[in-house]
Amino acid sequence: MAYPMPSPDLLRALAARLGPRGFTTDPADLAPWLTDWRRRVTGAAAALVSPATAEDAAFVVACAGAEGVAIVPQGGNSSMVGGATPAGPAEGRALLVSMRRMRAIRSISTEDNAVVAEAGVVLADLHIAVGERRRRFPLSLAAKGNATVGGLVSTNAGGTQVLRFGPMRSLVLGLEAVLPDGSLFQGLAPLRKDNRGYDLKQLLIGGEGTLGLVTAATLRLVSAFEARAVAWIGLRSARDALTLLRRLEDRLGEAVESFELVPAEGLALVLRHIPDTRPPLSHAWEWNVLVEAVGGADIGERLQSELMGAIEAGLAGDAMVAASEAQAEALWKLRESLSEAEARDGMAAKHDIAVPVADMPAFMAQASAAVVARFPGTRPIAFGHLGDGNVHFNVRAPAGGDDKAWFAAQAAAVSRFVHGLVTEAGGTLSAEHGIGRFKRADFAALADLVRLASMRAIKAALDPAGIMNPGALLPLAEDGSGQ
Amino acid sequence: MAYPMPSPDLLRALAARLGPRGFTTDPADLAPWLTDWRRRVTGAAAALVSPATAEDAAFVVACAGAEGVAIVPQGGNSSMVGGATPAGPAEGRALLVSMRRMRAIRSISTEDNAVVAEAGVVLADLHIAVGERRRRFPLSLAAKGNATVGGLVSTNAGGTQVLRFGPMRSLVLGLEAVLPDGSLFQGLAPLRKDNRGYDLKQLLIGGEGTLGLVTAATLRLVSAFEARAVAWIGLRSARDALTLLRRLEDRLGEAVESFELVPAEGLALVLRHIPDTRPPLSHAWEWNVLVEAVGGADIGERLQSELMGAIEAGLAGDAMVAASEAQAEALWKLRESLSEAEARDGMAAKHDIAVPVADMPAFMAQASAAVVARFPGTRPIAFGHLGDGNVHFNVRAPAGGDDKAWFAAQAAAVSRFVHGLVTEAGGTLSAEHGIGRFKRADFAALADLVRLASMRAIKAALDPAGIMNPGALLPLAEDGSGQ
Repeated sequence: MAYPMPSPDLLRALAARLGPRGFTTDPADLAPWLTDWRRRVTGAAAALVSPATAEDAAFVVACAGAEGVAIVPQGGNSSMVGGATPAGPAEGRALLVSMRRMRAIRSISTEDNAVVAEAGVVLADLHIAVGERRRRFPLSLAAKGNATVGGLVSTNAGGTQVLRFGPMRSLVLGLEAVLPDGSLFQGLAPLRKDNRGYDLKQLLIGGEGTLGLVTAATLRLVSAFEARAVAWIGLRSARDALTLLRRLEDRLGEAVESFELVPAEGLALVLRHIPDTRPPLSHAWEWNVLVEAVGGADIGERLQSELMGAIEAGLAGDAMVAASEAQAEALWKLRESLSEAEARDGMAAKHDIAVPVADMPAFMAQASAAVVARFPGTRPIAFGHLGDGNVHFNVRAPAGGDDKAWFAAQAAAVSRFVHGLVTEAGGTLSAEHGIGRFKRADFAALADLVRLASMRAIKAALDPAGIMNPGALLPLAEDGSGQ
Repeated sequence: MAYPMPSPDLLRALAARLGPRGFTTDPADLAPWLTDWRRRVTGAAAALVSPATAEDAAFVVACAGAEGVAIVPQGGNSSMVGGATPAGPAEGRALLVSMRRMRAIRSISTEDNAVVAEAGVVLADLHIAVGERRRRFPLSLAAKGNATVGGLVSTNAGGTQVLRFGPMRSLVLGLEAVLPDGSLFQGLAPLRKDNRGYDLKQLLIGGEGTLGLVTAATLRLVSAFEARAVAWIGLRSARDALTLLRRLEDRLGEAVESFELVPAEGLALVLRHIPDTRPPLSHAWEWNVLVEAVGGADIGERLQSELMGAIEAGLAGDAMVAASEAQAEALWKLRESLSEAEARDGMAAKHDIAVPVADMPAFMAQASAAVVARFPGTRPIAFGHLGDGNVHFNVRAPAGGDDKAWFAAQAAAVSRFVHGLVTEAGGTLSAEHGIGRFKRADFAALADLVRLASMRAIKAALDPAGIMNPGALLPLAEDGSGQ
């Protein structure tokens, strides 16, 4: 399917309805939003369209649909997989629809433990707004200063608190969205139970904008906590780390909110490249875990006591519990600087993969060995959300060579190989980042055909003209179109 | 669309593949499964077909699909809404597909906190099996001795523990299912994160068998608890009950697992009609709440202390914490006997409704007044899962009359009226029971047209011949067919 350019009439109608703040074709206005977050690709769009209300958003989709014009939705433009960049089959002809003007928090109910936030609300702003009401929105990630509610919903975002509260899918109580036919789906009521047939919002969550344009969401809130405790633990094996996690969960209840794995090599990279970091333990253990637990004022003591027990039981090698907020932040810095430290060290092919939690220790070892055998000299490293069975499995260029040349020549092959390994192991080549445009080819090559056929059928049923975010998520048809 | 009778060739092929335990047309074998749980309707089927494996189930669906023959899936036959009864457009021509032979628990992983259970596993058996591994499956309901995993998934079942752990949708980590085209969807891997596009299992959860036949599920387990505490609390208003819930959640963390509302009139009915029951408090409070909290050995003391504080604060009138397991069971009996006590008192039009939690106290009062004004003499009563914003809102026949005659003449009109009230309030006419066959007309009349159009489009895309559970959930087309 070839996508048409928007007609002059369409552009005039949008300009008239949305006004100068909501419509522009000025290249200078568009430029900042045409390159993806990882700076891997720059696309082009016919116009930047910014609705201020759900009704305006419905108007945009209806007008575009009438001409078969493509729409690329964009929130904070922080996709890791090029999901919000107008590149691909409709490049230069799509409307780039920015949701950033819809940034109202419509309501916060402490009785319903729910917030209604528009699609353009930035995650960090949401945290502050609900915090003022002594509530928490329990999802956070590195891009929180940019990522918006609409994008978080559309990518089913994860982060560092999935262990306890799940990803966005677990936190969305209701949605408002424009469907591809321009109709407005109104489902914001925070019903804890609703069994009126198919749960349509589940298709929009993680749908990457290919089935509709999310305009607002009702999100679950939880109580603010009294205190948090952060600990750093040295271990002999990743399997011991998993055993420790289950032990802490059994004994501390659901207080464990983060359980992040850092291998010795990862910690060494951080200490080498990131200023103002120092080793938290006196010995360099082969594996490290950062744990965060929340609860009453005694949570630090309880965590300390459990970790002492784990050391006595031979499960952990050593451990320290942060004695102050500053120490806690220093421990988190070690974990959160890992990507940056790795980048400073050289280029790597990066993968966001998951297998069943119990399988991850063995998978990391086997996959690392397989990668080195197939691509001699490369240096795999795995770190991250072990408690979710999700690690960032990155394959660094061979030491001492031209890493840029290696990346250009080898990265795609390495990624296809790693994605094949994880698929064979019953896992996923996208745990939390989505498919977007960058993973589409590997997804198409490795996807289960039954799933793929069902996804195509649903897409064709709800968006028969294929106007919503063409080129993202779904494999291209043979004619190169987004369908 | 008219559904054909299965051909003799089809029946022979099924008999040959499934053997005598898996295939019968004997009316005596079929009879027990043709009448619904509430004994409101008796249907008819061409054969009872019982696959023992997912591959056999796929064979059944593929064969049926080749002739356009309808399939009605059935688990424990405990639907409250006639969802598993072969009545309607394909009556007498459908294959009744029983999943009861698929009752293996394929695996339990305490490391993954997951169990893989086949569709025919009975809920009570599942509880026992995982309990032996010191884990809990945290969903329970009255029909647990009959209800099966496949039915629980397909109806997105609720129950008394939704408050903390959510309904089935929150507990399903993976699914295996036969799709309407006979293909086998294999998604049992317990991935905590997986963002490979549309989450297809979400359509099967709560799909009431209209989009596929669930053959197995991977379900989330949680740690066993050390102790539970059950309390009965007397209050002046339902709004106070809600305030108390949020207070307990804030102070006890996520320990509160059940929060069930019982009005004075409901308790009086139980005390009048159910043997061996007695009032838990010395005074008859206008509203009562049963709370269950779980945790360490001190949970009883902690709950007691919080309830004392609530009484001192004027929030609760009186309270007692069960001092023994026998007392705890006696308190639960008061709650769980409510439906039976009500039935012994006379007939009632029953409704399973939800609104946002914070709106429920006002909604109960306003809806009761509206019902009495419109249907003079009727006696509404609301009880149940206040913490989920879900009550069973039942309208009892006027006192002293012929309640059977009243029911026959008035119940449908009363139900339509109540369903209209809850829809206007932004709520749902089915919180946990589903639509099935009994609520289909009201659903069709009151459903949001955008949702309905999307549901029809998805159904047509995945089941174009309309063979899966025709007559359930989706409104009938004008020709009376299941589409």
